[in-house]
Amino acid sequence: MKAVIGIDIGGTNTKIGIVNQEGKTFGELSFKTQEGHENFEDFIETMNEKITVLLSNTGDIQINGIGIGAPNGNYFKGTIEFAPNLKWKGILPLTELLEKKTGIQPIKLTNDANAAAIGEMVFGVAKEMKDFIVMTLGTGLGSGIVTGGKLLLGHDGFAGEIGHVTASRNGRHCGCGKKGCLETYVSATGIKRTVFELLAIENIESELRTKTYNNLTSKDIAEAAHRGDAIALKAFEITGEYFGRALADTVAHLSPEAVILFGGLAKAGDILINPVKKYMEENLMGVYKNKIKIILSGLNTGANAAVLGASALIWKEI
Amino acid sequence: MKAVIGIDIGGTNTKIGIVNQEGKTFGELSFKTQEGHENFEDFIETMNEKITVLLSNTGDIQINGIGIGAPNGNYFKGTIEFAPNLKWKGILPLTELLEKKTGIQPIKLTNDANAAAIGEMVFGVAKEMKDFIVMTLGTGLGSGIVTGGKLLLGHDGFAGEIGHVTASRNGRHCGCGKKGCLETYVSATGIKRTVFELLAIENIESELRTKTYNNLTSKDIAEAAHRGDAIALKAFEITGEYFGRALADTVAHLSPEAVILFGGLAKAGDILINPVKKYMEENLMGVYKNKIKIILSGLNTGANAAVLGASALIWKEI
Repeated sequence: MKAVIGIDIGGTNTKIGIVNQEGKTFGELSFKTQEGHENFEDFIETMNEKITVLLSNTGDIQINGIGIGAPNGNYFKGTIEFAPNLKWKGILPLTELLEKKTGIQPIKLTNDANAAAIGEMVFGVAKEMKDFIVMTLGTGLGSGIVTGGKLLLGHDGFAGEIGHVTASRNGRHCGCGKKGCLETYVSATGIKRTVFELLAIENIESELRTKTYNNLTSKDIAEAAHRGDAIALKAFEITGEYFGRALADTVAHLSPEAVILFGGLAKAGDILINPVKKYMEENLMGVYKNKIKIILSGLNTGANAAVLGASALIWKEI
Repeated sequence: MKAVIGIDIGGTNTKIGIVNQEGKTFGELSFKTQEGHENFEDFIETMNEKITVLLSNTGDIQINGIGIGAPNGNYFKGTIEFAPNLKWKGILPLTELLEKKTGIQPIKLTNDANAAAIGEMVFGVAKEMKDFIVMTLGTGLGSGIVTGGKLLLGHDGFAGEIGHVTASRNGRHCGCGKKGCLETYVSATGIKRTVFELLAIENIESELRTKTYNNLTSKDIAEAAHRGDAIALKAFEITGEYFGRALADTVAHLSPEAVILFGGLAKAGDILINPVKKYMEENLMGVYKNKIKIILSGLNTGANAAVLGASALIWKEI
């Protein structure tokens, strides 16, 4: 059987899985990305060990390559560059080191949002699409852009940082060093910040008043909203307004067929999508109105959507 | 000799020229786009007559096609769709009608900004570039986006309307029906509006206080600025601020190698480019800083840059 190794490198965990041509993931395992790995080479060593374990546990398969999604992954160079959430600094030659260590070829790397975009084309809701955008709503806000059937990479390979357009001048502090970036409003962290702002401003009762900042999750906020909690509902409305306004600008650049929402916060469903649609439509030029679909990822249902997306980097080429 | 017909359709004038492979334009002529043409078919009729005249005046040439730049030109369909500055409404099947009338094939149509972008690749400053954006600063603000060496058209062929991102919530009224669009601040008209706003707010003396709104041109403003007029200089600073901030968001989408400025207002040079650079850099993510070039069009020097750009639609294919 033909198969591909998909790897999702996150700031906390790295997940590895074997993915077949139908998008079935098997033999998945996970390990801590940074703990116990003083140097980047130590991390590569562990990754190689885990791949060996994984392959020894599966039957007779032919590995056609490794696809990797990682923060600040540079597709052109196969490097991770200046990733704010990793302790290894500078430019990390990931694919080169991993190729040497494992002997497996080809190894393709891109950032996690681009991997999700390719994943939607190969296994998800974008199989028939050539122009679409995937927005990944996690701790931050990533974006993967496909135009004319291809990943939009840009001159340096760093296209698709829509999470860092300015949504509010002199607004919230962002991890990237700027202020008012869209991801400080639209992401799992962003909606939590909005909830805390609302708890400070409003006098309305809310079940969220019993939560600490550190423990509140976007899932808690979505559940409270579904129970009718007024603060949670208002937080989704505000998040949708920031998101919808920004998407209208994105549409003016790219004229996509659809915007696909991926990641934890996207699972909130209509309480997020409805205000996004409303504010996007209000701010679209006539030529785009009532044309742009906002839809949920087709990968969210899988055990590990990110591993699936990463593997699609290789499947797309085969 | 091989040649191509380039046509630039504007709201006021339509310009036709024959362009050779070196980008030399000859035998150019111009006629009123809308005057005397009640129906769109009348306009096609005149265009055919003018092409016949042009061809009869030139020597032995082989015409390889017609390239057309027009407002709201749809590359996929060869139609002009709902152009706000044309009196003929709805969807106008331009290439189909012109092909029937002239017998010349192929005929390629796109909007004027896209034609300028292709022109820069074929004849201008983007010969070695694969990822760049052309911004056309005229009555409005157009944009043509090239990624991976190809025009970014989007799902509907309407990608590249950066002039209609929202630069100021509930801001100036835009011809497109929205409020606060970037082109209401950044364009020949936009800077004029800024001058009139400043004349109202400030008590500073200015030579521009003697001008009517209808007669003031962006050239007047640039000349006043070069003479040190404080209102004119401030208008360029404000225009550059709006533009630079917006370009930082555009860069976050597209990661271009360069932004190329085209059209009358661009000729102002450093008094425009310096504040654009300053405010763009201030608002860029670290990964893009000090990398994105802001340069002037390489087509501005030609007799008719738009005709040259339109012809490049065909030259690009040959």
